[in-house]
Amino acid sequence: MTARILDGRATSAAMLDRVREEVAEFSREHGRVPVLATVLVGDDPASHTYVRMKANRCAKVGMESRRVELDAGISTETLVKTIRELSADPAVDGILLQHPVPGHIDERAAFEAIDPAKDVDGVTRTSFARMAFDEGGFASATPGGIMALLDAYEIPLSGKHAVVVGRSPILGKPVGMLLLARDATVTYCHSRTRDLAEHVARADIVVAAVGRPELIRGEWIKPGAVVVDAGYADNRGDVEYEAAAERASFITPVPGGVGPMTIATLLAQTVRAAREGTEK
Amino acid sequence: MTARILDGRATSAAMLDRVREEVAEFSREHGRVPVLATVLVGDDPASHTYVRMKANRCAKVGMESRRVELDAGISTETLVKTIRELSADPAVDGILLQHPVPGHIDERAAFEAIDPAKDVDGVTRTSFARMAFDEGGFASATPGGIMALLDAYEIPLSGKHAVVVGRSPILGKPVGMLLLARDATVTYCHSRTRDLAEHVARADIVVAAVGRPELIRGEWIKPGAVVVDAGYADNRGDVEYEAAAERASFITPVPGGVGPMTIATLLAQTVRAAREGTEK
Repeated sequence: MTARILDGRATSAAMLDRVREEVAEFSREHGRVPVLATVLVGDDPASHTYVRMKANRCAKVGMESRRVELDAGISTETLVKTIRELSADPAVDGILLQHPVPGHIDERAAFEAIDPAKDVDGVTRTSFARMAFDEGGFASATPGGIMALLDAYEIPLSGKHAVVVGRSPILGKPVGMLLLARDATVTYCHSRTRDLAEHVARADIVVAAVGRPELIRGEWIKPGAVVVDAGYADNRGDVEYEAAAERASFITPVPGGVGPMTIATLLAQTVRAAREGTEK
Repeated sequence: MTARILDGRATSAAMLDRVREEVAEFSREHGRVPVLATVLVGDDPASHTYVRMKANRCAKVGMESRRVELDAGISTETLVKTIRELSADPAVDGILLQHPVPGHIDERAAFEAIDPAKDVDGVTRTSFARMAFDEGGFASATPGGIMALLDAYEIPLSGKHAVVVGRSPILGKPVGMLLLARDATVTYCHSRTRDLAEHVARADIVVAAVGRPELIRGEWIKPGAVVVDAGYADNRGDVEYEAAAERASFITPVPGGVGPMTIATLLAQTVRAAREGTEK
């Protein structure tokens, strides 16, 4: 068996076409375009690249991005104040704080300064709980993108055993909660898990979200399983791709799998935030 | 093998002794005792009993309870307003909304009216996320009680495979997050899980939190596993007790296991809320 590709580029392109139409419709109705504020702290080159990509995508779908760039030495208090101002600003529909922030900053405090109604990257406690409780809040962008990708290929989730490797607050934990809300049986594995290979081997759906290149060996994959690789480090994913693709029924490439879905989800949620904000 | 009993009565009694001392100390320092407000909607006899038990326990440890009883026909808006008033009232340290509320009420809206700083029953979105992110917030009372019981018997959690059967917002989901925060590998099972028996059979720790009498068969339990039964319906637990006790290393009885731990956790968190409230 050779796996079908879960093509994040094509799927996200279709999503972004819809977003572009929604932006146009919003613009006709409200006389302005949705605005995503991106907050970047410090001068990490990768983070700069990510933020620039997001700004470019905004422009492509007709949305506006407002880039806020702050010095690496900024205090938590100043960052929180800046984000609170964006939360209070009626001209801003969505807020993204580029992760990670420098180590001296209390990232959680900064995230919580985002008004949940503008939390289009799904990083606040409120968004997490709304995902977990299936209340229809904003999903964390990568987990939301993974769900959209699985849905685009009509992968059945109910009753399936999903194994999530990784437990970060904006990736592993929320993707598990979203899968659970869709009636998957969900196992969380992580660095302290014994017999990771055995857990992965039992999975109908594997979501790798660790950032350790090729941690997941191809030979662990159950024949016919669906493999989603959300890891990224050293230009490689968390999954040993070639060997996994021989066993899986579906697999995401890295790059071109989960990555493009993340930005598409972010922008889709920004239009939605704009719409919901004007409905109030 | 016959399992050792995880004795919730004895463990909670020891916890309540500590709470009584903390109440006395708080009272000496602040000239008043901690106050738990209990909100009860309607006339469900079981709920009345639970609220009365909680009030009695408050009295026994020297705390005050303020009972708010509301008509079954009350609107969500009125309930939310009542709870917001308690949230704003400096004389109230902790707030408990007795679950379940009548079906026409939006329970989530009512829970969210509780100030997270007074959410001693751990039902708000904020408390859930803080449990999930291991931030030291208030635990949901039953999940917090389960963790305290496991700790009292020094049950190792790190690297163990915990299977949680049930996924309710104030029981199954949070107990899984608390176990994950303690480095267990965690599997969530539920009504749509296939092969529940196989999942349970792989568990080092089983937490049953469904409310379906004897859903978990004794023969499923892995020899030496730890069995925590948080279910309760028709005077029975979720686990087939006698058969499970022959295989498990530790097991909670029903009653006398998880139940008493829930109230002890609620009261311990109320004193803590009082202390933290006065520190601000």
